[in-house]
Amino acid sequence: MGRSESRVRVVRVRDGRREARADVLAAEEPLEIRVNGRRLAVTMRTPTEDFSLAVGFLLSEGLISSAADVSSVRYCGRDFGPGAEETDNTVDVVLSPGVAAPAPALERYVLMTSACGLCGRTSIDSVRTTTRHPVAGDRMTVSEELVLSLPEVLRERQKVFDRTGGLHAAGLFEAATGELLAVREDVGRHNAVDKVLGWALLQDMLPLAGHVLMVSGRASFELTQKALMAGVPMLASVSAPSSLAVDLARESGMTLAGFVRGERFVIYAGDQRIVPGGRAGAPQPFSAARAET
Amino acid sequence: MGRSESRVRVVRVRDGRREARADVLAAEEPLEIRVNGRRLAVTMRTPTEDFSLAVGFLLSEGLISSAADVSSVRYCGRDFGPGAEETDNTVDVVLSPGVAAPAPALERYVLMTSACGLCGRTSIDSVRTTTRHPVAGDRMTVSEELVLSLPEVLRERQKVFDRTGGLHAAGLFEAATGELLAVREDVGRHNAVDKVLGWALLQDMLPLAGHVLMVSGRASFELTQKALMAGVPMLASVSAPSSLAVDLARESGMTLAGFVRGERFVIYAGDQRIVPGGRAGAPQPFSAARAET
Repeated sequence: MGRSESRVRVVRVRDGRREARADVLAAEEPLEIRVNGRRLAVTMRTPTEDFSLAVGFLLSEGLISSAADVSSVRYCGRDFGPGAEETDNTVDVVLSPGVAAPAPALERYVLMTSACGLCGRTSIDSVRTTTRHPVAGDRMTVSEELVLSLPEVLRERQKVFDRTGGLHAAGLFEAATGELLAVREDVGRHNAVDKVLGWALLQDMLPLAGHVLMVSGRASFELTQKALMAGVPMLASVSAPSSLAVDLARESGMTLAGFVRGERFVIYAGDQRIVPGGRAGAPQPFSAARAET
Repeated sequence: MGRSESRVRVVRVRDGRREARADVLAAEEPLEIRVNGRRLAVTMRTPTEDFSLAVGFLLSEGLISSAADVSSVRYCGRDFGPGAEETDNTVDVVLSPGVAAPAPALERYVLMTSACGLCGRTSIDSVRTTTRHPVAGDRMTVSEELVLSLPEVLRERQKVFDRTGGLHAAGLFEAATGELLAVREDVGRHNAVDKVLGWALLQDMLPLAGHVLMVSGRASFELTQKALMAGVPMLASVSAPSSLAVDLARESGMTLAGFVRGERFVIYAGDQRIVPGGRAGAPQPFSAARAET
């Protein structure tokens, strides 16, 4: 197993049965890209091919256009002894003489991580110390049936997707009733989530205790962070989470479910909030759902 | 049809037959988010729910945490007369008294659009005037069969996806032989593309005339921009492009294919580079492919 993957213990729910098993996740870590020693950008990426990633980013931004524009690419500020590979999250691209460096005003920061060192650990700590709406104490529960119903309810409300096939969606559900309160769509999945959570903020609904956020794509660190900043105790997605999304959910006391499809899903964090039973196709109050089991 | 969609003429290729038809795309436009009148960030988004998006972004970044932190949200610098809706791409969030504004050092710029006004038109012009590797004159052609073979060839080489189900992929193909030269995976699709194009730059292969870039997800403006900056004359994706990706491809003379699945795909731009015929499953030189038809 290389740096691009991470192994975790998960709970798989299938046809009402639970099974603890090992799962493999795509790794996600922050990468700081420097040019001539100055920070230009931070991106969350899967650690492999970091030099190519840094150089490709500079190409996309119009700073370089050929190999001749690059003098050297290296990890910086690191001991290259054994184990160094695990924490190599800063790459410095030194431009060739005569190639203009980016103007200082063009530096791009990822706000949440700009003040801290660069590894998954510090990214998680940054979110945990910044949010005003901790979720660990939220005693909300949802039934397995409600979790299984989320993708279909969301999909039915995706108006633009039906016509274009090209949009991500995010939906906010009230856990106690299963009601879908808001759906928003966007070409960017982070935007779809911002639209839903921004709507809730403007409705003065924060913190979103007792709510579930469902997303149509994968669960990245960024989406998990957004949910946590709004005080959402549970995030569900139709696809896989990243390693750092799972780490953040676990350390924040958030429930994270993935691969919610058909009659199965996987619980990556906070399984105590998901209780067996419920009635298929008809989300209901969870006191009732629990009484049934 | 609202601001969230855009209608275009496309060519659908299905079982070797071509059909011109109307298609509906998800709209994509830049949004500048300001706080107290100062630019904080630019994001490419689907124009709807802009106020929620701006406020949700500030929530995610830890700048606000409740409705009480927001004094007002409005479009700025615009005439609100008829037609104003079409160009409302700047939102200003005014914070309540006592709520700290972001430090100037935290401003986040999207480099390619930071110097220009904010609409799709200027975003496209920015890319067209910045790239050193124009593609309009590239006379490369590929056969329909080669296009149809791309997703399977890419998928076979996605090592990490097989184990995690959680990664985007980008692959660079040589058009003359159909050979897959490089595949890169990442939790972020923009990173997967940067890794492939950065690798090519370090191999001194730029401009990538005569090559096809295939991506596993959707084709956004950002991915199209990245391909153009490297001089790639054709981008193919397994899913839908956005409206702005299509506009950029058309104005740059790039070929853009989407929904490449099974025995069909859609050509959104530059259909002259895709010629009928070819042999299924065995990509071949295109002089031969053209001779067959």
